[in-house]
Amino acid sequence: MVKVCIIGSGNVAQHLIAAFEAAEATELVQVFARDKSKVAHLVPEEKITSDLKNLVDADLYIISVTDGAIKEVSADLPFSGKCVAHTSGSVSIDVIDGKNRSAVFYPLQTFTKNKPVNFKEIPICIEAMHETDYALLTQAASAISGVVQTIDSSQRKALHVAAVFVCNFVNHLYAIGNDICRENQLDFDLLKPLIAETANKIRLLSPQQAQTGPAARNDTTTIDTHLAFLHDAQRKTLYETLTQSIIQHGKKL
Amino acid sequence: MVKVCIIGSGNVAQHLIAAFEAAEATELVQVFARDKSKVAHLVPEEKITSDLKNLVDADLYIISVTDGAIKEVSADLPFSGKCVAHTSGSVSIDVIDGKNRSAVFYPLQTFTKNKPVNFKEIPICIEAMHETDYALLTQAASAISGVVQTIDSSQRKALHVAAVFVCNFVNHLYAIGNDICRENQLDFDLLKPLIAETANKIRLLSPQQAQTGPAARNDTTTIDTHLAFLHDAQRKTLYETLTQSIIQHGKKL
Repeated sequence: MVKVCIIGSGNVAQHLIAAFEAAEATELVQVFARDKSKVAHLVPEEKITSDLKNLVDADLYIISVTDGAIKEVSADLPFSGKCVAHTSGSVSIDVIDGKNRSAVFYPLQTFTKNKPVNFKEIPICIEAMHETDYALLTQAASAISGVVQTIDSSQRKALHVAAVFVCNFVNHLYAIGNDICRENQLDFDLLKPLIAETANKIRLLSPQQAQTGPAARNDTTTIDTHLAFLHDAQRKTLYETLTQSIIQHGKKL
Repeated sequence: MVKVCIIGSGNVAQHLIAAFEAAEATELVQVFARDKSKVAHLVPEEKITSDLKNLVDADLYIISVTDGAIKEVSADLPFSGKCVAHTSGSVSIDVIDGKNRSAVFYPLQTFTKNKPVNFKEIPICIEAMHETDYALLTQAASAISGVVQTIDSSQRKALHVAAVFVCNFVNHLYAIGNDICRENQLDFDLLKPLIAETANKIRLLSPQQAQTGPAARNDTTTIDTHLAFLHDAQRKTLYETLTQSIIQHGKKL
């Protein structure tokens, strides 16, 4: 059975810990957390260490810390020749110190503390510096997810940028919708079925097929009315930029 | 039983026709369609007319045509003193010719041809020029939806702008994610669980609580990497504008 050790106690680390604790095809042998209390609700105390020197033997070490700390943490590991993966979407595989076998174990999802996710549906994007490590990474990833994909560092960077568009930026548009509702004494709940259906539609249609609205039909009357309504300069700029982008995009098709 | 007549055969009209045909608390007495064949699959032929002069008696006439055509169609109606509603998010109640009792019957959803929607969850925003018509509009709206809300024309305009942000603009960001995937030999399906969870999250969290990503944590290293990756000028502008908006929004909280 694949022995996994998770190094980190942040948001992604906590979701991974919960997933590996529940998985049957792998054994979570240890968790490293500088502050043990952050993961105490997820694993038995004897599995937690706050000292890198006390790391036990494992087949796969997953470093799930902030992007900027991966390099240092991987250099501080007290062993060599092991498979060591990070979980970042935006950092190259080679930031991991070369004394170990560098790899990537990137779960493509938005994680929020205390909100459980269904890990089975979360794509895990794997990459290995050593060809022979793909079997190990696939085994570990398959233990928690039904979607495992080999993706190189340059593709992963592209995927991360795409994820920012479809997740972080999308959520910000929800925030603007929420603000507009609040300012006009409207319940944001009114927009929730629309939000759900918009996300739902692209399970069946391509985003191009699903595009509706004033910009898609070049309805300048409505666009002008909306721009006149938007007093906030930032929102006006957003509205204009997105509208122009939809119009240009339509022309390219 | 409330007798409803639908005037129009476009996208929204077709979804309304299907919903009213299935509803038990109302009777769909007639549909007006210039081209009868567009609605022939939805209602029996004897209920369809292509001549406004042949409109039969009803309690509520719902004009579901393009924004620009509402005024003319309402003026062409061969009767007066009846309750006549339009279904537009962006047009004022008073574009309906004053010879009838003007109203609004606005279903807040994104409709795509041939993709059925669950009308029960779609908010119907109603407005009436005559106070006594609210009972009628509520009765008709409740027959097809579980969410009926009285909303005046200025609130409806705000709601429509908000809807453009959370639906049309969001879908365009999906399109960009799709493009980035295609250009990098990545399957867009990889992003679908992320898209679903992003929409799902705000059922429980406010968009502010749900915000993640490089802009939210002011991670300039990742932001710069992403901007360097984006060669397309339009996308770069979008990325910068949305990132700035997230940063500014975070400061306001």
